[in-house]
Amino acid sequence: MNQAAIGIFDSGMGGLTVMRALKSALPEEAFIYLGDTARLPYGTKSAATVRRYALQAARALAQRQVKLIVIACNTASLAARELAETLAPLPVLGVIEPGAAAALAVAPHGPIAVLATEGTVKEGAYARAIGVSATVVQQACPLFVPLAEEGLTDGAIAELVVRRYLDPVLNLRPAPRALLLGCTHYPVLRQVISRIAGPELALVDSAHTTAAAVRELLTARQLRAEPSARPAPRFLVTDAPERFARIGQIFFGEAIDPGQVELIDLQ
Amino acid sequence: MNQAAIGIFDSGMGGLTVMRALKSALPEEAFIYLGDTARLPYGTKSAATVRRYALQAARALAQRQVKLIVIACNTASLAARELAETLAPLPVLGVIEPGAAAALAVAPHGPIAVLATEGTVKEGAYARAIGVSATVVQQACPLFVPLAEEGLTDGAIAELVVRRYLDPVLNLRPAPRALLLGCTHYPVLRQVISRIAGPELALVDSAHTTAAAVRELLTARQLRAEPSARPAPRFLVTDAPERFARIGQIFFGEAIDPGQVELIDLQ
Repeated sequence: MNQAAIGIFDSGMGGLTVMRALKSALPEEAFIYLGDTARLPYGTKSAATVRRYALQAARALAQRQVKLIVIACNTASLAARELAETLAPLPVLGVIEPGAAAALAVAPHGPIAVLATEGTVKEGAYARAIGVSATVVQQACPLFVPLAEEGLTDGAIAELVVRRYLDPVLNLRPAPRALLLGCTHYPVLRQVISRIAGPELALVDSAHTTAAAVRELLTARQLRAEPSARPAPRFLVTDAPERFARIGQIFFGEAIDPGQVELIDLQ
Repeated sequence: MNQAAIGIFDSGMGGLTVMRALKSALPEEAFIYLGDTARLPYGTKSAATVRRYALQAARALAQRQVKLIVIACNTASLAARELAETLAPLPVLGVIEPGAAAALAVAPHGPIAVLATEGTVKEGAYARAIGVSATVVQQACPLFVPLAEEGLTDGAIAELVVRRYLDPVLNLRPAPRALLLGCTHYPVLRQVISRIAGPELALVDSAHTTAAAVRELLTARQLRAEPSARPAPRFLVTDAPERFARIGQIFFGEAIDPGQVELIDLQ
């Protein structure tokens, strides 16, 4: 048994979709969520800059004695190996490997279409994680994050934007068998994506497989918390706590009390 | 005569619309443009964070011996007075006062509708600059910056998004007499905004009045450059020079050679 918290970080609010899945799978665990809101988004930034920011965020969580760190941001997951080496023996998990596993589970031979940020597409992170067993098609969707953060998760604007990015993917032959939401912001657009993609195309995201991977790791290392606890999550942000609480609800699926959100400095 | 460059900074690429107007009004001047692309956008960040970033950017320009600094970002213009005090006697100009003057010139008694980022709206910067002589209505347009950076400056998506923000403004009674584009990104959406706003509503932005204010100040202080010169502009960015060169063209209106764009660190 280990009552220490699980640390989760993201550039902003998207990672709250991962935290939501984690909290649902592991309700007895304590969570500390860090959103680097002063420097969001990461998706349009270079790998070197994202790596530097991710290291600062992970260190801030490590200083708060977490027992495990989840990089709940696809773009920042490119730094997963480096963070794991720097922070060892503290375990570090990204969302890329669980996401790739989820897609391979439904479409073992592909083609797998990955929707992601410019940064993730440029790094080819999913193509590497999926490996040679399946064909991978990548599509950058730069407007999905601002749409999601504006709460425009359905309606005419969302439909047109989703069509803009999905049309080239849906017209591919052979047609993709799995559509992987490769950014933690995208699950809030799931309904409209799914409607446009049609019932034949399996939609997968990494939130639930990441939660399963975390549970497995905690169990294997005997790090799970007392089953009776139901601790309230803590939130840390680098800017604008009130905005985080307000917009974060879209992703977390429940209200966030602005008083629970603490402003910290990562410089 | 003074051959030193004019320094211009913005969170990213929007300020290039101001530099374009400056270069056209003052073709003999040298320009150094700094885009803080590692930390863009500023529009959703708190005043304290924007102030800190703006000071770092202005100092980086001052170290490069510029003769004048233009804050080509409405959100960062909130730090104009502080920057002027810190960097004196180096003159510092923001875009808020020139923008307010341009709106008052076409609609002296208002109402003036200001389209701007969340940050600028929250600060009420234009309402303060316009003062008591005209009624001011503010409308935050958080999707305009991502649309502009995606190059979606016309077409169905741009129309729907512009309508979403403009409809409440256009339905006001008494109707606004001037529509002020209170973010340096917005002029690239000018055509679709103007089509939806209709011919009765005067559209103003701060780029041209800022250029006029800069020319006036340089002339008054005898800081203008030799009229024969046509120096090439320099570009500094804090991240992703290739992306800056590619997307920057939308705002600058001419090609930017990636080899001209230098990566610097503001930390």
